[in-house]
Amino acid sequence: MNVVREWAELMEQCKIGDAPVAMTEYQGTKQLADLGFPVVEGYLATTEDEAVQYSRQIGYPVVMKIMSPQILHKSDVGGVVLGIQNDSDAKDTFGLLLRNARQYNSAAIIHGVLVQKMQPKGLELIVGVNRDPVFGHMAFVGAGGTTVELLKDFSMRLLPINEVEAGSMLQQMKIYPLLSGYRGANPLDEASVIQLLMKLNTLCSELPQIKEVDLNPVFVYEHGIAISDVRILLEKSRQNTPANRIKQRYLDKMFNPKSIAVIGASSNVKKNGGRLFHYIVKHGYKGKLYPVNPGAEEILGYPCFPSLEAIPETIDLACIIVRAEQTPEVLESCIRKGIKAAIIYSSGFAEIGWEGQLLQQKITEIADRGGISLCGPNSIGIASPILNTYTAFGMALQTDHPISGPIGFVSQSGAMGSALLSRAWEQGVGFSRWISVGNEADMAIPDFIKFLVDDPETKVITAFIEGIKDGSAFIDAAEAARQARKPLVLYKTGISEVGQRAVQSHTGALAGNDQAYQCVFAKVGAIRVENVSELIDVSRGFMMPVLPKGNRIGVVTASGGACSVIADGCSAIGLNVPQLSTGTQQVIAECIPPFGAVQNPVDVTAELLSKPDMFKRVLQAVVADPNVDALLIMLTTSADPVASVVARAIVEVRDQADKPILVGRLGADFLAPQALQYFREHQVPVFPTPDRVVKVMKYLVEFGMHQYGKEEILINLINK
Amino acid sequence: MNVVREWAELMEQCKIGDAPVAMTEYQGTKQLADLGFPVVEGYLATTEDEAVQYSRQIGYPVVMKIMSPQILHKSDVGGVVLGIQNDSDAKDTFGLLLRNARQYNSAAIIHGVLVQKMQPKGLELIVGVNRDPVFGHMAFVGAGGTTVELLKDFSMRLLPINEVEAGSMLQQMKIYPLLSGYRGANPLDEASVIQLLMKLNTLCSELPQIKEVDLNPVFVYEHGIAISDVRILLEKSRQNTPANRIKQRYLDKMFNPKSIAVIGASSNVKKNGGRLFHYIVKHGYKGKLYPVNPGAEEILGYPCFPSLEAIPETIDLACIIVRAEQTPEVLESCIRKGIKAAIIYSSGFAEIGWEGQLLQQKITEIADRGGISLCGPNSIGIASPILNTYTAFGMALQTDHPISGPIGFVSQSGAMGSALLSRAWEQGVGFSRWISVGNEADMAIPDFIKFLVDDPETKVITAFIEGIKDGSAFIDAAEAARQARKPLVLYKTGISEVGQRAVQSHTGALAGNDQAYQCVFAKVGAIRVENVSELIDVSRGFMMPVLPKGNRIGVVTASGGACSVIADGCSAIGLNVPQLSTGTQQVIAECIPPFGAVQNPVDVTAELLSKPDMFKRVLQAVVADPNVDALLIMLTTSADPVASVVARAIVEVRDQADKPILVGRLGADFLAPQALQYFREHQVPVFPTPDRVVKVMKYLVEFGMHQYGKEEILINLINK
Repeated sequence: MNVVREWAELMEQCKIGDAPVAMTEYQGTKQLADLGFPVVEGYLATTEDEAVQYSRQIGYPVVMKIMSPQILHKSDVGGVVLGIQNDSDAKDTFGLLLRNARQYNSAAIIHGVLVQKMQPKGLELIVGVNRDPVFGHMAFVGAGGTTVELLKDFSMRLLPINEVEAGSMLQQMKIYPLLSGYRGANPLDEASVIQLLMKLNTLCSELPQIKEVDLNPVFVYEHGIAISDVRILLEKSRQNTPANRIKQRYLDKMFNPKSIAVIGASSNVKKNGGRLFHYIVKHGYKGKLYPVNPGAEEILGYPCFPSLEAIPETIDLACIIVRAEQTPEVLESCIRKGIKAAIIYSSGFAEIGWEGQLLQQKITEIADRGGISLCGPNSIGIASPILNTYTAFGMALQTDHPISGPIGFVSQSGAMGSALLSRAWEQGVGFSRWISVGNEADMAIPDFIKFLVDDPETKVITAFIEGIKDGSAFIDAAEAARQARKPLVLYKTGISEVGQRAVQSHTGALAGNDQAYQCVFAKVGAIRVENVSELIDVSRGFMMPVLPKGNRIGVVTASGGACSVIADGCSAIGLNVPQLSTGTQQVIAECIPPFGAVQNPVDVTAELLSKPDMFKRVLQAVVADPNVDALLIMLTTSADPVASVVARAIVEVRDQADKPILVGRLGADFLAPQALQYFREHQVPVFPTPDRVVKVMKYLVEFGMHQYGKEEILINLINK
Repeated sequence: MNVVREWAELMEQCKIGDAPVAMTEYQGTKQLADLGFPVVEGYLATTEDEAVQYSRQIGYPVVMKIMSPQILHKSDVGGVVLGIQNDSDAKDTFGLLLRNARQYNSAAIIHGVLVQKMQPKGLELIVGVNRDPVFGHMAFVGAGGTTVELLKDFSMRLLPINEVEAGSMLQQMKIYPLLSGYRGANPLDEASVIQLLMKLNTLCSELPQIKEVDLNPVFVYEHGIAISDVRILLEKSRQNTPANRIKQRYLDKMFNPKSIAVIGASSNVKKNGGRLFHYIVKHGYKGKLYPVNPGAEEILGYPCFPSLEAIPETIDLACIIVRAEQTPEVLESCIRKGIKAAIIYSSGFAEIGWEGQLLQQKITEIADRGGISLCGPNSIGIASPILNTYTAFGMALQTDHPISGPIGFVSQSGAMGSALLSRAWEQGVGFSRWISVGNEADMAIPDFIKFLVDDPETKVITAFIEGIKDGSAFIDAAEAARQARKPLVLYKTGISEVGQRAVQSHTGALAGNDQAYQCVFAKVGAIRVENVSELIDVSRGFMMPVLPKGNRIGVVTASGGACSVIADGCSAIGLNVPQLSTGTQQVIAECIPPFGAVQNPVDVTAELLSKPDMFKRVLQAVVADPNVDALLIMLTTSADPVASVVARAIVEVRDQADKPILVGRLGADFLAPQALQYFREHQVPVFPTPDRVVKVMKYLVEFGMHQYGKEEILINLINK
């Protein structure tokens, strides 16, 4: 389809400026008809005679609609008449429509009256595209007609899509059965709806100016479809790729610095500069460390320098923690000193309003000019537990026992990030890298995600996100994570209107439409969690060496109540608790007392916990069952020493299994400290509530399904 | 409306036995017409001539439908013809319908052809009633027509209802705007739909035999409604009130026993009987204690008796922990000894199948005969921390530091109940009473709830529920809780089909339809939580001395990220984060730095936490704001000593406020042990994650709205 030239002319006609321009329905219909879209036959009549002539040409009955750029909701002002049967009615209707239009708005520009073939009733869909300011074109399809907003039954996808994806968009609608053949009715023409989506796909790839296409209703028949109403909005497409994306990055100097200068270091730990320097020293940084402060001789035994230039050696990383207005001069001295990586902790930039915004632009320009990779301003810093390098001043670093591990974490909220870091440590969970991005004057979330993708110390990437500025950079980074088979686990805030207000008052980030984010995350296979604390839970889950290959969960508990709770949880969330094979049931029946349950969910009864060999046999049988993709064990109140015996049995089964095993334990930690210690030593994450272990299993399955490309299971999971 | 006689005749006709009996549409239509329901005019034609005659009488166009008890889905077999215009068509259609019916099922009994007035299109609703086997009649109303099952847009209520409740049923539908006047359209006749629900309400109150009434579609017009299709199912109503409901109860002897005999006590703590006796002693029971075991001289220093009768004193409570087959004889000896309260811990009853079921019936009969109040069998026991009386053997009792408090807890799962008890203690939360109901051979959940309602030690009642056997007893107990203004907080499992399987294989309880439970909980103002661990969270929340009077939440945090997360959480759950009044905003602006947020959610910034007076002023201003019903404070990583200063400020504000204040804190406990200790000492529950504190606030508001009768806010909360 070669459309660019024709549409370009139309856009010339429309005199497109910065504001979006709406086409009239007739213009839109005509354009789409020319491009081969199955629009209802129709012509623009400008006189009574033309109205009659077109009506005859089309064949009665016909529909007539007023065409005016000033009248968008035609039905509401008597601008639409259906079922016109003959010449005389056609003539009268033409006059009536004009009178109604003038009465509604005497200044309205009337392009004429659209005469259309009267369509038989079919299933009504709404089909269209919408350009998100951050991520670009999204296609959508849903239950159409006048109740679109009430029922909210629709699915959306980031473009481009292929035919399989278009097909699964249809399947995601609640009313999909009406399309595929409901209650013995003949199936409707799904293929034509898919083709319509593909046509929109092509159109958007060639015409970035498309802001909105709304086709509503699209009538779907057993054979064919008919687009009965067309609404098109055009708008200049904005180039939103920031210049800094092509900057050379000095990530090694930022994350693995051999030498650090702290500009604004202090010996007063009540000051941020004092806390920062204290944490670097306290947590055992191994490289060379230079405090810079013209007012001090030494800090914590380190000789202090009056300026960067006074330091006799080269510096990998500048940690800048001075007053906001001093930061430009400090950055200039970084350039003079040849420093290529800096973190600015200072606040007083875009987050405080327009003066701060100007200052932020200034430091971005300086960093660009000097080729400096910059994190911040208004950052809490970067921590690399894996290297004992803590260039951060978050309160979490008060701990005497930081833990390193395989999780890389990047946060747009310093406070939430720091709190999560401390909670992770509390649970014995370690991070490889921890990054507070601050205001993202230079480096932003996508840059850090890319770094974590390449970072060999990081196996799981997690992020707390308020808003993405550069959609395509984010998509690139997420795709890189997917290629590297590193799970990308995200919490995204700013969903509610009030939440967006909060985000905007705090950072410069644009909190985009949540539905768009949802599409993008689905497209790139990112795992979106619902609660911040799940960032830690899920990351723990991903320490499992294997992924589930499907959503069929074997459940083993020692209590009927736990069976029921886990079964409810699985079902609510789209996980399947299948029947076990006969062989497995036989093995279980041989092991457990008669008042247990041999069916999935299996209740081995509390009695069996003190018979570890039997318990192990049950676990082995369930995990090996061909009907099962993963094993979930829910423990209740077992106490040491029985609990430790149980823990050993679970670890032994886990070591031999080629399917993931997750463990929940509702009983308090104080009942089984030895068992919990054993689990920790053997890298078995234990989740304290049924809902949390089920949720983590869902996310593991979701990631597995992305990896193994099982679309149909994903739809079920994401819809729940 | 006096209908009993007429319907009784019809039921005689229908020869109602134990199985449900369906009326044909004509029978149903006629009955409802006689009772004044606005059914579409229609007559049963048994010949061609009658078909023509009725068609003329009604006036063309008409609709014809085949009437046969064997043909339920008439449309699917060519049993319905619409829009018949004249005598000749009416005659032909009559023949056609008969032929189609015979072709579909040659043995079908044909009652005739229903000739109905052809109705103009209106909004299609489904309206009806359904009798739940446990709770009785439920009314429902929803989006009607053929897509009922796909859209699942309906609301249900337990009968009886009044007109206000009927009205709010309508408002709960997503498509309600179509009824109330959508996009400038005239409103439809809501009042007639409400009247229809009220007619069904009356009908069911007079005719318990009604099993199902399905009116679908009911056309709703601007003036009037028309019931176009009627489906009625009748069934004998079962009397499901167990005899034991009229037994005299000896709750004081069960819960506050002055003397206890433990039949089956042992000095081996690996045995259940050993553990039970050990826990009674260990946790300091103050009354007289008698181990009964013919094979022992003494246990833990208590002289042992060979039988109950050998004990020289009267006994309040018998704790029976012997093999299942010995329990009848032990109960008989209880009768001989004049004991009126017993707990049977032994398993091997209804939960193991039909033999156990028989044994369970036997002990129920003995208990009834002896007038014994019985808890169990298969119970883990009863604990009264408030009295240091622990007649239970759950592993939670391993603790050396049990805590008492205002929460009464009753559980149908011993294992889950015991696990939750231990988790509560871990969080510093105490119980007044803890009850494992076991198989409920005699006393059941409603009996225990009633006890907790009357128990002065209990302020909040919580329950883990698998299934209720006696619906009206439950409703009575819950109503009593509401009257006493004690929150009833429930977790109900057995929602999923698999979950129901698990429940049924474990206990004898009937896991009823979840939707029915939902209706009942809403009706009695019980708070249903989604996750088991929320039972503890919410109960902690209810320790607040005051309830919110609305759903408008003031939010104060020290981080923009936290503001956004809380705002998202509130909005997802139906809580409102309103604009603060101008005066409040001015006070906040005077206190906080320029990069904070004076709007709700308020970001005071981390800086303010070290200025406790300023922080207090902000809290006081927000909690006093007339736009706000409750205050939610979300802390992040503040560490001692700052965290302690913050804690003191919060407690001071709480002490003077007449609105509830909840606190969340995402940062790890190890950062602020002193602050957390201070909160605990001052009864301020602190929740570790944003989602948990928001959830608890939602439940507080829900209970407040039930108490204050604010239906419109409740609808919003329950729909979310």
